[in-house]
Amino acid sequence: MKMEKLITNELGSGDNFSLKIIKLQGICEDNSKKVYIQANVHGAEVQGNAVIYHLIEALRNNLSLIQGEIVLVPQANPLGSNQKVGTWTYGRFNPITGDNWNRMYKDVLKNEEALNTLAKEHKDDATTSKKLKKLLKEKIQAMKQSLSSYGPNENSIHFLNLQELASDADIVLDLHTGPIATNYLYVPAFLEEESKHLGFNHMLIIPNEFGTAMDEATFMPWVHLQKALKEHEIDYKIPFSSYTVELEGEELIDLERAKIEASKICQYLVYKKVLTKNPFSTPTVGDQYYCHLKDYKTYYAPRGGLVNYTKKVGELVKKDTTLFEILNFNDLDNLVTPYKAYKDCLVINHNTSSNIRDGMELYQVMENYWKID
Amino acid sequence: MKMEKLITNELGSGDNFSLKIIKLQGICEDNSKKVYIQANVHGAEVQGNAVIYHLIEALRNNLSLIQGEIVLVPQANPLGSNQKVGTWTYGRFNPITGDNWNRMYKDVLKNEEALNTLAKEHKDDATTSKKLKKLLKEKIQAMKQSLSSYGPNENSIHFLNLQELASDADIVLDLHTGPIATNYLYVPAFLEEESKHLGFNHMLIIPNEFGTAMDEATFMPWVHLQKALKEHEIDYKIPFSSYTVELEGEELIDLERAKIEASKICQYLVYKKVLTKNPFSTPTVGDQYYCHLKDYKTYYAPRGGLVNYTKKVGELVKKDTTLFEILNFNDLDNLVTPYKAYKDCLVINHNTSSNIRDGMELYQVMENYWKID
Amino acid sequence: MKMEKLITNELGSGDNFSLKIIKLQGICEDNSKKVYIQANVHGAEVQGNAVIYHLIEALRNNLSLIQGEIVLVPQANPLGSNQKVGTWTYGRFNPITGDNWNRMYKDVLKNEEALNTLAKEHKDDATTSKKLKKLLKEKIQAMKQSLSSYGPNENSIHFLNLQELASDADIVLDLHTGPIATNYLYVPAFLEEESKHLGFNHMLIIPNEFGTAMDEATFMPWVHLQKALKEHEIDYKIPFSSYTVELEGEELIDLERAKIEASKICQYLVYKKVLTKNPFSTPTVGDQYYCHLKDYKTYYAPRGGLVNYTKKVGELVKKDTTLFEILNFNDLDNLVTPYKAYKDCLVINHNTSSNIRDGMELYQVMENYWKID
Amino acid sequence: MKMEKLITNELGSGDNFSLKIIKLQGICEDNSKKVYIQANVHGAEVQGNAVIYHLIEALRNNLSLIQGEIVLVPQANPLGSNQKVGTWTYGRFNPITGDNWNRMYKDVLKNEEALNTLAKEHKDDATTSKKLKKLLKEKIQAMKQSLSSYGPNENSIHFLNLQELASDADIVLDLHTGPIATNYLYVPAFLEEESKHLGFNHMLIIPNEFGTAMDEATFMPWVHLQKALKEHEIDYKIPFSSYTVELEGEELIDLERAKIEASKICQYLVYKKVLTKNPFSTPTVGDQYYCHLKDYKTYYAPRGGLVNYTKKVGELVKKDTTLFEILNFNDLDNLVTPYKAYKDCLVINHNTSSNIRDGMELYQVMENYWKID
Repeated sequence: MKMEKLITNELGSGDNFSLKIIKLQGICEDNSKKVYIQANVHGAEVQGNAVIYHLIEALRNNLSLIQGEIVLVPQANPLGSNQKVGTWTYGRFNPITGDNWNRMYKDVLKNEEALNTLAKEHKDDATTSKKLKKLLKEKIQAMKQSLSSYGPNENSIHFLNLQELASDADIVLDLHTGPIATNYLYVPAFLEEESKHLGFNHMLIIPNEFGTAMDEATFMPWVHLQKALKEHEIDYKIPFSSYTVELEGEELIDLERAKIEASKICQYLVYKKVLTKNPFSTPTVGDQYYCHLKDYKTYYAPRGGLVNYTKKVGELVKKDTTLFEILNFNDLDNLVTPYKAYKDCLVINHNTSSNIRDGMELYQVMENYWKID
Repeated sequence: MKMEKLITNELGSGDNFSLKIIKLQGICEDNSKKVYIQANVHGAEVQGNAVIYHLIEALRNNLSLIQGEIVLVPQANPLGSNQKVGTWTYGRFNPITGDNWNRMYKDVLKNEEALNTLAKEHKDDATTSKKLKKLLKEKIQAMKQSLSSYGPNENSIHFLNLQELASDADIVLDLHTGPIATNYLYVPAFLEEESKHLGFNHMLIIPNEFGTAMDEATFMPWVHLQKALKEHEIDYKIPFSSYTVELEGEELIDLERAKIEASKICQYLVYKKVLTKNPFSTPTVGDQYYCHLKDYKTYYAPRGGLVNYTKKVGELVKKDTTLFEILNFNDLDNLVTPYKAYKDCLVINHNTSSNIRDGMELYQVMENYWKID
Repeated sequence: MKMEKLITNELGSGDNFSLKIIKLQGICEDNSKKVYIQANVHGAEVQGNAVIYHLIEALRNNLSLIQGEIVLVPQANPLGSNQKVGTWTYGRFNPITGDNWNRMYKDVLKNEEALNTLAKEHKDDATTSKKLKKLLKEKIQAMKQSLSSYGPNENSIHFLNLQELASDADIVLDLHTGPIATNYLYVPAFLEEESKHLGFNHMLIIPNEFGTAMDEATFMPWVHLQKALKEHEIDYKIPFSSYTVELEGEELIDLERAKIEASKICQYLVYKKVLTKNPFSTPTVGDQYYCHLKDYKTYYAPRGGLVNYTKKVGELVKKDTTLFEILNFNDLDNLVTPYKAYKDCLVINHNTSSNIRDGMELYQVMENYWKID
Repeated sequence: MKMEKLITNELGSGDNFSLKIIKLQGICEDNSKKVYIQANVHGAEVQGNAVIYHLIEALRNNLSLIQGEIVLVPQANPLGSNQKVGTWTYGRFNPITGDNWNRMYKDVLKNEEALNTLAKEHKDDATTSKKLKKLLKEKIQAMKQSLSSYGPNENSIHFLNLQELASDADIVLDLHTGPIATNYLYVPAFLEEESKHLGFNHMLIIPNEFGTAMDEATFMPWVHLQKALKEHEIDYKIPFSSYTVELEGEELIDLERAKIEASKICQYLVYKKVLTKNPFSTPTVGDQYYCHLKDYKTYYAPRGGLVNYTKKVGELVKKDTTLFEILNFNDLDNLVTPYKAYKDCLVINHNTSSNIRDGMELYQVMENYWKID
C-alpha cells in the first residue's frame, strides 16, 4: 500500500490543498482488473471517506485477496471540503461560478476520430479495450495541456486529473450521499442486470448518455467505442462498470454503518472477480427497487414556511396521502396545510431544512418503480 | 385570539420583514398572570414554532382554561430566519457584526436609581411587582428612543421590542434548540426548585447574573429589585420565572414531538396556575439531571479531520472511555485516532458536522451532574 | 405614471418579496412603441436602478415626450438583491442550485409549430409582428401553467414573469454591471449597425443564438420568426431590439454618473423615435470599440496569491506587456511575479478582489477589436 | 533575511494553513530595537501585505540600515484570508463563533502579581523593561499551555502565537484597512505626541485601556507596569509604541500606493532610530487631523434601500449638509431621501455596498477633530 499526494489548489494565502491517492496493489496479471473509488467530491458528502477507511483497514494486510489493483481517493475535492460557512459545508457548487462540482467532467472522446481507427483495427475485445484506455489517457492529458493557455480556469484541471486517475480502471465507484436520504445507486442502462450485486436498495437507471457527472464521464468512452464498433458490425460488450453510489445523509460520518457499506462493495468486487473473498461479514440485502431516471420526480415547495416531512426516506407512499405539511403563521385559520402525493411513490430523499421558501426542493421520489426478486 | 404584525426590517430592495404577535386572552382578573413565549431567535432553531402551533391549536377554542393571557411570538427574528446560505440557515449571528442574536438584549434596570425609590415606597409585594413592570416598560421605551439619534444600529430596536413585549409578563419562555442535542433548560439559580415541573431531562443552573441573553434580560430587573429591597431589609421572593428552553436539534421541525413538548409546557402552566387543566395528554417525564453552568464543558477538536461522534446525546459517559474519533488520511498508519472523556460526563449536544478543523466545538457535556427523584 | 406590485417569493418566515413595475404611458397610437427596461437581476449590480430613477424623474412630468410606453422594473430580482453575506451581495447565483440568475430564461418559441402558420398567413410585416407578440405571451403563460404540477421550481416562474412583462416590447434593455468594469454592451449580430446610437464605448457582438440570458430570450422569438418567413421566401427585417447594458462596477450606485447613462439611453430612444426629445443634456460619446464574443477572452489566475491589477479597465494593452502581477510570500526570492498579455487587447473588466486562488477569473479583455468612426 | 513557517490550522481535509515569519536582522547591540509588523488579520484587508513586500525589497540588501531587527508577518491569519464566499473575502469574523478576528487577543498581565515584584526590584528603566518582556513571554506560553486541556478552542492559540511573536518588540504595527476609507491610525493616548511622525492624515486617540485588539494587547503590559511602578512612586516613561495602521480600502492591493505607505513607516523608524536612513524617497505629508475615540461616530441606515454616498472619504462635512441619500422605490413620490450630518464632521470611511437594510453601518466620521501644524 502506498500514498501519493497531488497539489490541487494554491490559495490567496499561498497555502496549498492536495489530493491523497492510496493504491492497494494485489496480484497483477495480464487480465487482472483495476478499481477506482473516490469519495466526497461534494464537500458535505463525507460518508464515502468512512467506507474508504474500512476498505483500507480490511485489505492492507490482505493484499493477496486482490486480483489487480484498487485505487482509493478520499476527500477528492479539497476545495469543496473546506468551503465551510459556519459549521455547514457549502461544498456542492463552486462558490465563484455556481458550477456543481459533479458537473465539471468532460466527455473526452466525443466525436473522436481515433475511435474509428480503433474499430477498423479491431481484432479482439481485450486488445481494443486496452487501446481505448491508452487513447483516453492521452486525450485527457492533451486536454489539460490545451486548457492552460490563458491560465487554467477554476479547477477544470483538477477534475481532468480525477478522470485521468480513473482512465485505466475497469470499475469506477463515485461515492456520494443524498441530503437526508436512503441508500441508492445511479445505474447506467447497460449495467441494469449487474447492479443488483451491489446490494443497494434503490436503483435509478440512467440513459447511456453524457450528463457531465463522473459516472457518465467514465462510461461514455466505452459507449462511444461500442457505437464505433457497431458501425463496423462488430458486437462489443462493454467490459467497464461505473456507478454513482449514494450513502444516505450529509455532513456526518458513521463508522459503524460504513462497515456494512464497505462490505457491500466488497461483495460486488467478489462478484466481479476482483476480490477472491469478502474480508467483511456478508451483508444482508433487503428489498431492491428500480426506476428510470425520467420517473425520478422532485416535489418543490408550493409556498414558503416550515415544512414537516411527514413521510420518511425509504417509505412507500400511496397517491393522495399526505407527503408533507407546511406551517405558516400568516393565516391563523390555516396554520398547517397538508400536501399530497400526486402518484404512488417511493421516497428517496428530502431536504435537510424545514425552513423553506417557495420553489425549494422538498422531496425526490421514485414513481413507476418495480421490485426485483 | 388575535394577531398583530410589527415591521422589523426594511431591506435593500424595499421589502419588509415583520413579526407576528399572537395573543390568547383567557379569564383576566387582578392577579391573573401573563405568559410570554417566543421561538426561533436563532434562525436554524425552528422546533419552537411547532410547539407554538400546538399551543394555539389546543387553546384557541379553550380560552377559558387560561387564567390570564398567553402571548406567542413564533419566528421572532425574521432576519435570522431568512439568512439562508444554500439550504442551510446561517442565522446564529448577525452576518454583518458577528453578534450572536441571543446576545443582543439589555440589562435595562442596571444601576437604576428608580429601584431605590420603589424599595423606599414598598408596601406589599404585589404592588411593588406591578410598579416594577411599569418602570421596566418605560425604561425600554426610553432606551429605544435614545438609540435612534445616528440611526438605529443593526437590529438593536428589534431586540428591545421583544423585551418590551415581555416586560409585563410573569413567565417568559425563550424556545431554542441545540445543534444535535437532547432536551435541556437554562435555569436561573433562584428557580432551581421550580424547574423540575417543566418535565425536561437536563437542567443547567445559571447564576442570577446578566449574560445578554433573553432569559437573563427578563429576570435581571427582578434580581435588581430584590437586591434594592434587601438593602431596605425587606425579604422579597421573586414572583417571576424565565427559562431558555432547548428543544433538541436544528433545521427540522417534528410536529409529533412538538405535541409532547407543548404538553410539558402546559403541565408547567398548570403548576403555575395559569392553566386550569392541560389540554394535551399528560407527558411522561424520565430521569432529571442537573449541573451548574461552570460544569458545562466544551470539547474542542484537537486536530482537523472527519469526526465520528461515538457517544450520542443523552448518554452517560465514563471517564477515559472514547468520546469521539477523528479520521484523517494524512498518516496511513493512524487513520482513526480515538479521544477519551477527561471526566465522567453526560452528553448534551454535539456538532452537526463531521467535517471539522482544529479548534471547532465538538461536544458539550455536563460534569458533576446530579439526578433528582 | 403608475406602479404595480407582484409578489415574487414567500420565505420560510412567511414574509414576501415583490416586484415593482412602473409604467410611463405616453402618446399611444397604433404603431407607437413599447420599451421595457429592467435592472439588478444580479443582486450586486445596482447601478441600473439609479438610471431608472433618473428616467422616472425626467419623464414623469414630460409624458408627452413619449411616443408609446416605457415600462421600468428596478430591483428585478429581490431574492438576488437580498442574498447578502456580510456587507457583500452574493446575488449572482441561486444559492441553492448554483444557477446564474441571468441564465434562467427560456427560448419560448424554439421549434414552435405556430411560427410556420404565422409565416403561411403572412400579409405584411406589422401584422405578423403583432401576431408574434400575441403568440409569445400565450406560450409564456402556458409554460408557467405547466411548471406548477409538482410545485414551481426555484424561481422559474419569476423569470417567465419578467419575459411576459417584456413580451410585447419593441425594445428591451437589461441593465447589468461588470465587477470592476468599463461600460459595455452585448449586441446581437443583427443590431451591430444600430448599437452605436446607445453611445457606449465597448460593444461585444454576440451571435443570433440562444444562451439563456434575457437579451437572447427576448430576441430569439424574432430570429425564429425571421427564419420561418425565409422558408416561405419572405424577407423580414427584425423590428425588435434588445441589449444587455453593462454600467461599470458592482455594489455601489453613483447618482451623478447615472444621469449620463440615462441620457445615453434617452438619446437612443430619440433615434428609435420613442422619445421626441432627450430630456437630459446631450451626452458626449468617446471612442467606440467592437469585437466578436469569440474574441472576448478571460485570463485566469495561473497561481494563488495577491493580484496587483496593473492595467486598468478601458486600457489598450500591448502584447507582451505586463497585465497583472501576483504577490506570493512562499518564495522570498520571487515575491512578485509579472504576467504578460498574450495578444494586444482592450481591458473590459477585472476581479473585485486581489485575494485569489489559482483558476479564478482575473481579467476579461477584447482581442481583435476595431474602432468605428 | 530568513523565513520561518508555523502551522496555524489543520482543516477537515487534513490540509494545513501556515504563517510565514520573515526576519530582517540588522546591527544588534545591547539597546537596539525590535520592530514587529503584521498585516491582514482581517481577511479582506490585504494592502498591508503590499507594504511588507516593499519593506522586504528595500531592506533585504540594506540590512546595515537597521539598528536591531524587523520581524514581518504578512497574511497573519490564513483562516481569515481563505474564508472566501464567492469572490468576496468574508474574513472579518470567525465564521463559527462570530468573533471579530481583531478581538481575540488577551490582556496577559492583567492583575499580574509579578508586576509588583518587578516594581519592588526596580533599579533602572532599561533593566525593568527587559524583565517585563521576559515575563510577558513566559505568561503567554503558560496561557497557551492551559488552553489545551479540552482541546484548544477556535484559533485562540493562533492569536497568542502572534502576541508571543510581538512580546519582545519595542514597536508594533498592526496593518489593517477600512472598508472604503481614507488612511488613519489608532493612537494610544500615551503616544499622541509621537504619532504625527508616521505621516498619516487622520488619528483616532484611544484610551490607555484594553479593548481586545492587537495594539492594546501589546501596550497594556507596559501600562500595567507603569501603574505598578507609580505605586512605588517611580516615574516611568513607556518605551514601547504600538499602532493600528489603517491603509484605505479592502480587497485590493495597490503596489504603487504601498510604496508611499512603506516610506511613511520607514520615515517613522528613522525618527525612532531603528533605521539610519529611509530607503525610499521621502513621503509628502498633508494635513493631519486628530480626534478622540469617543468622537468617532457611526451613522446607521435609518431605512433600507440603495445608498448614494454623497460625501467621499477624507471630506470635511458641514452640519446640516447632505451626507448620504437613500433610493427606495416603494414611494414613487419620494424616490430619493437625503440625510444630513448632525454635526460638523470629517469622513473616515463608508460601507462598501449601496444595497443596505436599515440599521447597517453607513459612515464613520470624526467629530470635534483638530488639525495640528
